[in-house]
Amino acid sequence: MNLPSHGANPHYLYEKIGLAMPKNIIDFSANINPLGPPGILKEHWNSFYEQMQVYPDPEGRILKRQIAENEKISEQEVLLGNGAAELLALVGRMLAGKKVLLIQPTFSEYEKICRANGCEIHYYIMNDLNWQLDLEKITEIIKHVDAVFLCNPNNPTGIYYKKEALLVLLKACVKHNCYFILDEAFYDFVPFYENMIPEQKNYPFLIIVRSMTKMFSIPGIRLGYMVANASVIKKMAELQPHWSLNSIALKTGELLLEEKAFVAETIQYVEKEKQVLVPFYAKMGFTITNSQSNFYLLKDPLYDKQHDFLHFLLKEGIVARHTYNYPGLDGRWLRFAIKNRQENERLQGVMTKWMKTQR
Amino acid sequence: MNLPSHGANPHYLYEKIGLAMPKNIIDFSANINPLGPPGILKEHWNSFYEQMQVYPDPEGRILKRQIAENEKISEQEVLLGNGAAELLALVGRMLAGKKVLLIQPTFSEYEKICRANGCEIHYYIMNDLNWQLDLEKITEIIKHVDAVFLCNPNNPTGIYYKKEALLVLLKACVKHNCYFILDEAFYDFVPFYENMIPEQKNYPFLIIVRSMTKMFSIPGIRLGYMVANASVIKKMAELQPHWSLNSIALKTGELLLEEKAFVAETIQYVEKEKQVLVPFYAKMGFTITNSQSNFYLLKDPLYDKQHDFLHFLLKEGIVARHTYNYPGLDGRWLRFAIKNRQENERLQGVMTKWMKTQR
Repeated sequence: MNLPSHGANPHYLYEKIGLAMPKNIIDFSANINPLGPPGILKEHWNSFYEQMQVYPDPEGRILKRQIAENEKISEQEVLLGNGAAELLALVGRMLAGKKVLLIQPTFSEYEKICRANGCEIHYYIMNDLNWQLDLEKITEIIKHVDAVFLCNPNNPTGIYYKKEALLVLLKACVKHNCYFILDEAFYDFVPFYENMIPEQKNYPFLIIVRSMTKMFSIPGIRLGYMVANASVIKKMAELQPHWSLNSIALKTGELLLEEKAFVAETIQYVEKEKQVLVPFYAKMGFTITNSQSNFYLLKDPLYDKQHDFLHFLLKEGIVARHTYNYPGLDGRWLRFAIKNRQENERLQGVMTKWMKTQR
Repeated sequence: MNLPSHGANPHYLYEKIGLAMPKNIIDFSANINPLGPPGILKEHWNSFYEQMQVYPDPEGRILKRQIAENEKISEQEVLLGNGAAELLALVGRMLAGKKVLLIQPTFSEYEKICRANGCEIHYYIMNDLNWQLDLEKITEIIKHVDAVFLCNPNNPTGIYYKKEALLVLLKACVKHNCYFILDEAFYDFVPFYENMIPEQKNYPFLIIVRSMTKMFSIPGIRLGYMVANASVIKKMAELQPHWSLNSIALKTGELLLEEKAFVAETIQYVEKEKQVLVPFYAKMGFTITNSQSNFYLLKDPLYDKQHDFLHFLLKEGIVARHTYNYPGLDGRWLRFAIKNRQENERLQGVMTKWMKTQR
């Protein structure tokens, strides 16, 4: 099945499947904050017009310093990226030809960048009944690889792994000279998130990648950052093209780092939506993951592959994320973002309709 | 001398030199259109706010098609870049470990990306009396290298090389399996530019890199494109991080490709400024290059290195581009952008002042 390898840009999905795209679609395939961007961005938008006319600071010094101060680390431990995707691509280059472990199912980009760099790829595939990390088994694999990728909370399941578990793996990584690449693209949606950045000092093999795209609804602007040992950051920075971050991303980032009330409000909003959706799905007979993030996996347990269900949704204008390219899922689940009340209500309507045609 | 390796971001230059930055500086070190961006960008700026909230089309399909149609080539021969700098970085990766020829003095990024990829670097250094390409000598070197970089019109001299000369080199390149990387970042400022893109079909080793930054005053937004053989484009695209181009760059590009009258107006404006500046400099006793672009090299022929002159200008708030990191120039020239009448007038005032202190 040759479907698009990422969510968003739904016209590609309709095109590949060969369905006409309805006029009013709702895209649940991109995991973006249902509140949209914080108001401060709209307020400053006109001033960004001037930014467009000057070269970006190639060092992104102001934003880097802000992140370092926020996290109580040095600027030498921070690298800004043209989206987290660029940072992951740089990690891939650093790992060229090495052995890597991917904890599946997870964000497909890790495998793509590792393959592009000739890595030898190993999988640990989680059981889709409980999605638990078997720390003993993973520790065993870590002995034989050069890097392990973990997404926390994990995309596409939304499952959050506690710091305690991560530290067990980190200890094994340090012992066996294995990089631990922790993708925290959705960390700021987790109600009781435990910050891993302070552990960077104790575990120099820890590389943390964050995106500002999801929380702040700015996927179009491309902005992420990485926290790692200064020597790793230096190596990556040398591989990065000049002026990789655009001026608007830099200015946007400077404003957004201060938006702590907005983050709190978002967590509350998403939580409230879950309080509606979780019992609704239970009542309707769907199975979903116990997500700590702003998206979840869902399936109609009557079916193994969710192919017909996906087509039904698309025809109804509901764009779900297919899971054919997630090892360990292979099309047996669909992923949905938690959107706003009105949109989730329309989703609930279509879900009800599906169940009526099936039961 | 450890000065910044690029123009723009003048605070870095003042900082490195150890001078206080005056309040009212004019930055002549960034070669941006003196007219600023075309009006259509301002008109659409508010609609770009919506673009920021959606993932960019990772294929940039609309813009790619537009470029292909404009240039009468296929979309498979076009790659969009997060600025020309990203495209050059991709070229560098393709050439990893190979032998490359740099025609110096030229844009410093070629050498940087070649070094980052472990290339063996050869120089052909132009004579700074006439800046001519000795086609015979260069052809001889081409026999022994895998790639040659040429910037046309050349940065930092502004000198434009005729198609006839380029074709001689291209023929040698095809004969000896040598890539010809033609950086056309400033092509659209040249009054009688001869399009090289139609030659791509005849010379599959030709790789053309263009930037939309300079003509349209959008250095902050990062936008460039490359035209090359479909197999080269495919290879490069695989190395490019996902969503490398931001949504605003894509939308901006779509609008700007239609701005042909603006380009014509710019060429006229720059030409008119040259008609003022060229006789002014001749009268004052400065030496300048015969530029066909929107910038030029200048020196006070009384001095070999222009160090004191640069400091004098900086103190007066005139930011020139130093040339210490250009092999073949080594600080013996300064580069200036052609800016608007008012700014050029202030420059002329400071130049007059310098001459009064010296003669």
